[in-house]
Amino acid sequence: METINCGIACRKNKTGLLSIEPIMPLNSMKELSYIYAPTVGEISKKIEKDSTESESLTISGKTIAVISNGTAVLGYGDIGPLASLPVTEAKAFLMKNLGNVDAFPLCVNTQNAEEVIQTISSIALGFRGIHLEDIKAPECFYIEKELQRKLNIPVYHDDQHGTSIVVLAALINAVKIVKKEMDKIKIVINGAGASGIATAKLLREAGATNILLCDKFGILNPADSSSLSNEYQKEVAGLINSKNISGDLNEALSDADVFIGLSEGNVLTEQMIKNMKSEPIIFALAIPSPEVSPEIAVKAGAKVVATGLSEYPNQVNNLLVFPGLFRGVLDYGIRKITEQMKLEIAGALAGLVTKDELTSEYIIPDALNPSIVPTVAEAIAMQGYMLNKSIVRQSG
Amino acid sequence: METINCGIACRKNKTGLLSIEPIMPLNSMKELSYIYAPTVGEISKKIEKDSTESESLTISGKTIAVISNGTAVLGYGDIGPLASLPVTEAKAFLMKNLGNVDAFPLCVNTQNAEEVIQTISSIALGFRGIHLEDIKAPECFYIEKELQRKLNIPVYHDDQHGTSIVVLAALINAVKIVKKEMDKIKIVINGAGASGIATAKLLREAGATNILLCDKFGILNPADSSSLSNEYQKEVAGLINSKNISGDLNEALSDADVFIGLSEGNVLTEQMIKNMKSEPIIFALAIPSPEVSPEIAVKAGAKVVATGLSEYPNQVNNLLVFPGLFRGVLDYGIRKITEQMKLEIAGALAGLVTKDELTSEYIIPDALNPSIVPTVAEAIAMQGYMLNKSIVRQSG
Repeated sequence: METINCGIACRKNKTGLLSIEPIMPLNSMKELSYIYAPTVGEISKKIEKDSTESESLTISGKTIAVISNGTAVLGYGDIGPLASLPVTEAKAFLMKNLGNVDAFPLCVNTQNAEEVIQTISSIALGFRGIHLEDIKAPECFYIEKELQRKLNIPVYHDDQHGTSIVVLAALINAVKIVKKEMDKIKIVINGAGASGIATAKLLREAGATNILLCDKFGILNPADSSSLSNEYQKEVAGLINSKNISGDLNEALSDADVFIGLSEGNVLTEQMIKNMKSEPIIFALAIPSPEVSPEIAVKAGAKVVATGLSEYPNQVNNLLVFPGLFRGVLDYGIRKITEQMKLEIAGALAGLVTKDELTSEYIIPDALNPSIVPTVAEAIAMQGYMLNKSIVRQSG
Repeated sequence: METINCGIACRKNKTGLLSIEPIMPLNSMKELSYIYAPTVGEISKKIEKDSTESESLTISGKTIAVISNGTAVLGYGDIGPLASLPVTEAKAFLMKNLGNVDAFPLCVNTQNAEEVIQTISSIALGFRGIHLEDIKAPECFYIEKELQRKLNIPVYHDDQHGTSIVVLAALINAVKIVKKEMDKIKIVINGAGASGIATAKLLREAGATNILLCDKFGILNPADSSSLSNEYQKEVAGLINSKNISGDLNEALSDADVFIGLSEGNVLTEQMIKNMKSEPIIFALAIPSPEVSPEIAVKAGAKVVATGLSEYPNQVNNLLVFPGLFRGVLDYGIRKITEQMKLEIAGALAGLVTKDELTSEYIIPDALNPSIVPTVAEAIAMQGYMLNKSIVRQSG
């Protein structure tokens, strides 16, 4: 509570976390002419002739929009667009503070997916990337896909991809601790929302072959429509559960090596962990209350435990990805975030924990580790280079 | 050209004119908890319960959106939304540098008025005011009016109101030079677009009784629909031209005391000025080329000449208004810009030129005069106070 009161007091002092600052001096009429007329007119004409000029001559070449409509804010759900602003503002703060990336928070005042797409498409011209935040599933999938199709800049839904990348990074190191291999372990993900679906897909891309995804109706089974709430659940179930396995979470966990909770507090019991294979890996990532407390998980035999909370070891935090990712977007002229880039980032993040440092309580670097941003940015450089080359080749 | 090259080079160096800066330190996990989880969650919940909390806890309480769709950029017309960004970015720069007001530039990628309204309404929640810029007439009138109706924050179209306020300020002092009185002079405004219509209305509010507004079809005559291009021209013609006067610009200027050009370069000849009353006042405000060059105006007998250009005396520049106006909006909790506030600002700006300083070459303070912002902000304080009191009374 003292922390929260202090965080609130700091904001009240200066009205929020961000300030918009001029980066040229203005002390004379001559300097005014650099900033305003007649210079702006000439720049406007340049951009009219060649729109790409705007990327070096205006903030559109460096600024990321962090956008939410408030339909899935943190652990609280649909609490309205204005209530998402503290989150998007904090993300914009972190983008600049950690990644030296200029970012501006916007809230979109509609729950309608088409209107969200329309609004963001309409203002996207002034930005070099779109960071979507706290938009509920299943709309988030459609919104992201449509915006990616319409816009020529990266569109990145953090709840999906940030989570899936950090989970994969943590899992790469966790399996080393228990001396297992990614393509041989059984992974159960609980929660088939934005982050659960994205995580299932990325783990599959990373070589996992035995993944079950559970939601409130049990294991997502492509052959049982009663287990599926929407077309996105159906699609991922088809990808990962070709054997049409059914059952509840408890049944899914039988013989599982890994539990990944992206659901809600206290759904995993001591007994359920005991039913898993030996040395189970437990990622209980729900916030503010994890699926199982780390103390209980350890007591039940868990070998590696991760949460989304800073007060425990192994915090799985999206913060490890987005500042470096957008730093890389700007540094390497990237216009699209690919699956391969996400795999590269996860591998690079895992690599920041050296063999000597790796323990069951240190599988993932701390949020403020200064190596993270350059490592993540560089991880996508080669993919960005190859993508740009292939775009040139296609259009050449 | 050297000026423009320097202005361009400065932008290329840092990609534009603005930077978004964190205003809290982040050097420890403890500080991270102030900025991000768990503090943001608590703030989101506070705002969900009481949306007004966002005004002290997020940048929505202090940030102005500077928005254009690029349909009427400076002297160039409809050159596209992205080409408006150098202008809106410069205005945001000036807002902060001169007025200590945080402002962020946005471009809206549509010419359709309903879509502009829809987009701005949808993102307005994150802002404390909307500064509309370079949107063409007649759509600008409808867009502004609809947004004012929908939103609970000031919506201010600078091309209309900034221009009209500075013109009035300059005219208040110009008539002193020629020892005439506002309610007795004949004023001819050329150009019945956004700024021309707004100026005609504000001069009438300020006590001018004899105003003719001309456009490409001559004097706007409420009884002659062929002189009127849209409903807004019809409305203003009805207000100012109750005698149904017709004619071209040349006929309008016969016996006129004041010419105000808000049209395009070189439409006013030496002979036309000679046909005006003695000691005519000429405001040739088109940029980059004025309606008549100041040299020719003086040669033709003009007693006071103003332009929109910084290289001549008496620059009529919107810059004198918007930084102070939004400073006042923030300082005095103002949610609506009224006609009375515009009159107060014009009077206060005129008052910044003292009786002793006033000459035909100094009727309006220079753009960088440090007294402007506090003077303009204070000019609306009392009106803001009275407005807030009346709102409380109505709802009480």
